[in-house]
Amino acid sequence: MTKRVLLAFSGGLDTSYCALYLREQGYEVHTATVNTGGFSQEEQTRIASVAEQAHVISHTLVDGRERLFDRYLRYLVYGNSLRGNLYPLSVSAERVCQAELIVKRAKEIGATYLAHGSTGAGNDQVRFDVAFRALYPEAEILTPIRDLTLSRDYEMQYLEERGIHLPPKVRGYSVNEGMWGASVGGRETLSTSQPLPDEEFPGGHPTETEGSLIQISFEKGNPVSLDGEPMPAVDLVERLNELGRKYGIGRGHHMGDTILGIKGRIGFEAPAATILIQAHRELEKLVQTGKQAFWKETIGNLYGSMLHEGHFFDPLCRDLEAYLTSSQVAVTGDVRLQLRPYSCSVVGADSPYSLMNPEVASYGEQNRLWNGAEAAGFAKVYGVPQYLVAKVQGGLRSE
Amino acid sequence: MTKRVLLAFSGGLDTSYCALYLREQGYEVHTATVNTGGFSQEEQTRIASVAEQAHVISHTLVDGRERLFDRYLRYLVYGNSLRGNLYPLSVSAERVCQAELIVKRAKEIGATYLAHGSTGAGNDQVRFDVAFRALYPEAEILTPIRDLTLSRDYEMQYLEERGIHLPPKVRGYSVNEGMWGASVGGRETLSTSQPLPDEEFPGGHPTETEGSLIQISFEKGNPVSLDGEPMPAVDLVERLNELGRKYGIGRGHHMGDTILGIKGRIGFEAPAATILIQAHRELEKLVQTGKQAFWKETIGNLYGSMLHEGHFFDPLCRDLEAYLTSSQVAVTGDVRLQLRPYSCSVVGADSPYSLMNPEVASYGEQNRLWNGAEAAGFAKVYGVPQYLVAKVQGGLRSE
Amino acid sequence: MTKRVLLAFSGGLDTSYCALYLREQGYEVHTATVNTGGFSQEEQTRIASVAEQAHVISHTLVDGRERLFDRYLRYLVYGNSLRGNLYPLSVSAERVCQAELIVKRAKEIGATYLAHGSTGAGNDQVRFDVAFRALYPEAEILTPIRDLTLSRDYEMQYLEERGIHLPPKVRGYSVNEGMWGASVGGRETLSTSQPLPDEEFPGGHPTETEGSLIQISFEKGNPVSLDGEPMPAVDLVERLNELGRKYGIGRGHHMGDTILGIKGRIGFEAPAATILIQAHRELEKLVQTGKQAFWKETIGNLYGSMLHEGHFFDPLCRDLEAYLTSSQVAVTGDVRLQLRPYSCSVVGADSPYSLMNPEVASYGEQNRLWNGAEAAGFAKVYGVPQYLVAKVQGGLRSE
Amino acid sequence: MTKRVLLAFSGGLDTSYCALYLREQGYEVHTATVNTGGFSQEEQTRIASVAEQAHVISHTLVDGRERLFDRYLRYLVYGNSLRGNLYPLSVSAERVCQAELIVKRAKEIGATYLAHGSTGAGNDQVRFDVAFRALYPEAEILTPIRDLTLSRDYEMQYLEERGIHLPPKVRGYSVNEGMWGASVGGRETLSTSQPLPDEEFPGGHPTETEGSLIQISFEKGNPVSLDGEPMPAVDLVERLNELGRKYGIGRGHHMGDTILGIKGRIGFEAPAATILIQAHRELEKLVQTGKQAFWKETIGNLYGSMLHEGHFFDPLCRDLEAYLTSSQVAVTGDVRLQLRPYSCSVVGADSPYSLMNPEVASYGEQNRLWNGAEAAGFAKVYGVPQYLVAKVQGGLRSE
Repeated sequence: MTKRVLLAFSGGLDTSYCALYLREQGYEVHTATVNTGGFSQEEQTRIASVAEQAHVISHTLVDGRERLFDRYLRYLVYGNSLRGNLYPLSVSAERVCQAELIVKRAKEIGATYLAHGSTGAGNDQVRFDVAFRALYPEAEILTPIRDLTLSRDYEMQYLEERGIHLPPKVRGYSVNEGMWGASVGGRETLSTSQPLPDEEFPGGHPTETEGSLIQISFEKGNPVSLDGEPMPAVDLVERLNELGRKYGIGRGHHMGDTILGIKGRIGFEAPAATILIQAHRELEKLVQTGKQAFWKETIGNLYGSMLHEGHFFDPLCRDLEAYLTSSQVAVTGDVRLQLRPYSCSVVGADSPYSLMNPEVASYGEQNRLWNGAEAAGFAKVYGVPQYLVAKVQGGLRSE
Repeated sequence: MTKRVLLAFSGGLDTSYCALYLREQGYEVHTATVNTGGFSQEEQTRIASVAEQAHVISHTLVDGRERLFDRYLRYLVYGNSLRGNLYPLSVSAERVCQAELIVKRAKEIGATYLAHGSTGAGNDQVRFDVAFRALYPEAEILTPIRDLTLSRDYEMQYLEERGIHLPPKVRGYSVNEGMWGASVGGRETLSTSQPLPDEEFPGGHPTETEGSLIQISFEKGNPVSLDGEPMPAVDLVERLNELGRKYGIGRGHHMGDTILGIKGRIGFEAPAATILIQAHRELEKLVQTGKQAFWKETIGNLYGSMLHEGHFFDPLCRDLEAYLTSSQVAVTGDVRLQLRPYSCSVVGADSPYSLMNPEVASYGEQNRLWNGAEAAGFAKVYGVPQYLVAKVQGGLRSE
Repeated sequence: MTKRVLLAFSGGLDTSYCALYLREQGYEVHTATVNTGGFSQEEQTRIASVAEQAHVISHTLVDGRERLFDRYLRYLVYGNSLRGNLYPLSVSAERVCQAELIVKRAKEIGATYLAHGSTGAGNDQVRFDVAFRALYPEAEILTPIRDLTLSRDYEMQYLEERGIHLPPKVRGYSVNEGMWGASVGGRETLSTSQPLPDEEFPGGHPTETEGSLIQISFEKGNPVSLDGEPMPAVDLVERLNELGRKYGIGRGHHMGDTILGIKGRIGFEAPAATILIQAHRELEKLVQTGKQAFWKETIGNLYGSMLHEGHFFDPLCRDLEAYLTSSQVAVTGDVRLQLRPYSCSVVGADSPYSLMNPEVASYGEQNRLWNGAEAAGFAKVYGVPQYLVAKVQGGLRSE
Repeated sequence: MTKRVLLAFSGGLDTSYCALYLREQGYEVHTATVNTGGFSQEEQTRIASVAEQAHVISHTLVDGRERLFDRYLRYLVYGNSLRGNLYPLSVSAERVCQAELIVKRAKEIGATYLAHGSTGAGNDQVRFDVAFRALYPEAEILTPIRDLTLSRDYEMQYLEERGIHLPPKVRGYSVNEGMWGASVGGRETLSTSQPLPDEEFPGGHPTETEGSLIQISFEKGNPVSLDGEPMPAVDLVERLNELGRKYGIGRGHHMGDTILGIKGRIGFEAPAATILIQAHRELEKLVQTGKQAFWKETIGNLYGSMLHEGHFFDPLCRDLEAYLTSSQVAVTGDVRLQLRPYSCSVVGADSPYSLMNPEVASYGEQNRLWNGAEAAGFAKVYGVPQYLVAKVQGGLRSE
């Protein structure tokens, strides 16, 4: 009986090796590549051609961008989720979305084996394994690269002996591009002392030197138009990436914790994510209460952690999404941002649901909601617990 | 019997009015001004002169900067505490520190009345009242401005009739400067649509256009040297303010929740706070575990909220400080930052306690802490809860 | 023009005083009593009669029990919310529900004034005021008891002079009964040393000495049947109160923080709430993941605090309700409890969605989800952060 | 060169097998048993005798009880940490403490191998592995039982062939006893429907039927005396275990999440832990502010989770301990509890630091800290956010 496997395929060294190796192990190999942004037409053609050279039975390119936004990125916007207050969770979201669409395709073609080309060193293996098992528990998972521990040279030679010539890795930097951000690794990111050279980021040296103003509009937390022009979220993200890249916006170095417990450092360039989250966060400040703001901080942070750590299918994520969605009811309005080289800041925002309503109350002005005596009464009662502690426990702590 | 009052004095319209008014009400009026940064020598002289014109029995200038850093700002650095992920809690920290030193002075001179000139509209009245009651429960608090609801014109005339001529408010912008940041209010901040003009920030238009690199060193979370030169924290903060101001770093608009429940908007310029917290945050990423990082986010946010909302003397703050102090045990090392106009980013960091130790493990490389089979075992067990949910509760949620 | 007021009416001394006083101040006084449980038919008749004696224009009894459960108590069950891990939030829920139904009635009869009889000492004034303003911002709130600070004797005499003779307060204990629990105050609860006598609780001395087993069934977190008999939640709660009261179950002393910052102590008897929350909590353990369980603890605690502190109309409560509702998707099943004098404990539970599925995995048995080598790999990787800290930061903390 | 191993030894089937097996693999086998409570003198003698029969080079009994309390249980009391609001974390604390003392002994005798007899199925393997690696990173860990997957019969025969005759397991229940609680497993705990029979708990059927009152005194959160008699914590715990056991107090069934992701159910009997935590929790309510109480709930829950999940050596635990210790500054006083069959409740508490100070303020009474007008002012300002939301966002959510 044929053992049909669907391999998550990038057309790089490792997955090309997997395609051939699995075939030689007797599997009927199909491949699929999920586009979660950042794939040029040229790159897509190249991948398909490598798949063909590897004699796969079928190869498919799945456009995952809309799904990526609707099912994953949207909640990262709601949650203003940045890892370590800095890094948009691009790779985590992409991997789970890819796994999801790979499983969908596998079920379509009746594959009962799922394969990926991740090594045993990083996060992706865990994200793929966990997602595959949660979404397709009956399938068996094959991971030749993790199992075999091969050298790069060995794999290159193996492929060449079988007629596949991959472009040599000319530079010492690897770039992983997607809709929500590109990550960059290289010599500098193996330790923590030095930054990556500007030219190794996809955007290279910023080309814009003059500042510009943009306006993003949101409806219930979702970005819906740019400078007054309505457009689908995927388009809006791509437009912001293009624009922000010219300024070097959303570029940085992220130092973080991997699922396997070690630290990792990476460069990233994520203009759209950076701009959108900043705009969204400031709009929320207009329309959410202070208590909402305080707790959403923790909830958004938690949601990001769950996604990063590969727990997307834990039902806690559904509970958090319900919370986040509820919190967006009034997050509708326009936000204006000033873009400058390497910098982006919100300069104004408006919402029909703004709680800063000058007709009702205005900070620092004599106001209509209370008078001086009421404020004094408030301040007095407000301080009661601290007063009691001072009276009763005053001497307990030496300063 | 004389009723001796100590008035927190800024030499502005409201507190000058208070000084005279309280005197006419039969109090023996003493004044004290607490310098928490941002007072020029000229300004100090001016304040003392106004106090004299108001016939106060004594006037004192207290240098509160070291106390401000050691007792308040330090923990905001430990906690990376920024209100709304943006605004350093400068005013909140200053007010409590001022209240503390006012109480100290009042006890020294045997004053049993404490006075401040805050209106009933804002946060400061609450912070002062609460702190006064917690630190000096026996004292009575006098707040003429809050009680009387006078117009600016009335106060001006009152003072002029008594020979005090304050400089006219020529511009429509008010600036409140301190060590941890300046806040700016004006026409634009009464609503949310527009930014303040650049020239209304203390630093005006940035003068530096070339980027520069600086290095800040920390010991157990405390900033101890700049570019290799050891210096007290107060000096380091002032140097960073001076330097960062030239770049327009740490400038923005904060939209937030006041203690009294309404929203308020304010411009701020806080170069040192912005630079220090960013540097500190990235250094922490090297030396804290992922679990520490996750929870310190919530704890630091909570600490900032407690301070902002005037709960500094709630013993919860002591518990949070104990936590924060413990979390800094390994936060020692050097951080390098790239300063650019309107932007500042960490480009490298080193610590003797770095958990990213290339000798032990290196992300994405074949590594020494586990092999592929162990990683596969980990990934399998790691996903068990999500697998079980998928098996047992799979159909429960329609997507 | 007539000033029509609706007074929240209990038929006690304070609200009877209010009814007459407001009438004499020229208001057209209507009264409404909201039954949130615990009102006998006799008591209802008595209240209506007092209202009549006070010459109110109309008096209405509103049955708020179903609303109370559906809009408030339900979420307290979802959240397993007990104040201080002990006390069901009965009074907080009742007050807000009463305020809501009072406002509804006021709008029906076109009253533009709302009145309640709470003093300035406790929580209820805040809950009523806040709810009235959030639900009916245009109305004006009248609070004669808080404003006038009258003695009990004065009020008694005032009523008697106007022909209203209230039953004398024979005992030194006051009981506030409702569906979700009764609270009891008396001499002992003014300090913290002594318990209330058993006979002062509504249930008096427990009459049942033999244990008994009951079974409660839940659907998506809602209690739906008792011992296999389906019934509306309100009936189920009343049945459990009746049953549990015979055992003295859910009785205790609660020491807690009031909204106004002081501490308060109270006795309570809440059989149904205690039994339902315990049953629900144990059922959740079968069907929620560990991560869900951990976070729902904090969310449920937070929800209870928000309600207790009078923040029910803060939209954070809506966000928390969305979270809690999502968390109940799989909370369906049967729970068996052993009732004994003063004690109740869960002895078994079953759910179609149980994650403890002996067919899949069984704790402590050799199992089907992983083998020994995989477990060893898991344990190794799992400990990596602690291993790294030990290697790199080992000497930092003296124990 | 001799390979010296220290084996954590219980004298049961698995560890006896390990002792002989490791010896036959060429190791120089030493054993150590750590007494964390629950070992009778008879049991200790039996263990030593089995060790001798297994020809170990040395066997040591380490009394770990004081260490267990001081380093682990103390913080569980501070944190009121109960897993799932029910189960004291007895086993988790014991295992880490045992691992710690095993490592200490191993270093003393120069053993570079550490062995334990846990299977691959449960939590203990992870706790031992992680603790061993964190405390003694240079040592190698040996786990024959996990590696070999042997049947009980095989092990029995293996031992008997080598002259070791263990007492047959007569009953189908296994009991794991320690100072902080005993856990009981049996047929019933393999599923969730049924409770364990009363007679299978160490205390069997409760023998006391009359209630009794006890008083426990705390100093800074530590239990220091029982009924006025000062005693070391270890003695106090043992006395409470003995006493509470007669009432069947602290007995229950715990359903929880294991480190490996599956659910597990267990019976437990933990009188001392149950009584102490309840007493401590109620004392805290007298002396901590509401804000402290709210957050300590989350912190204590988190601390318990960290310990349960084997993360004790993550420095987050040190940060949490610093927090918990700070929170206990005022937790000094006397607590009185009523013990009854299967039930225990706090009936009174006193503290010199009580915030319920009748001289200062008294709930529900006219009081000295504010008047009616101040309370009204407080209530008005307090409700501002909810009022603003109602005005501006009123129609956004359909109910």
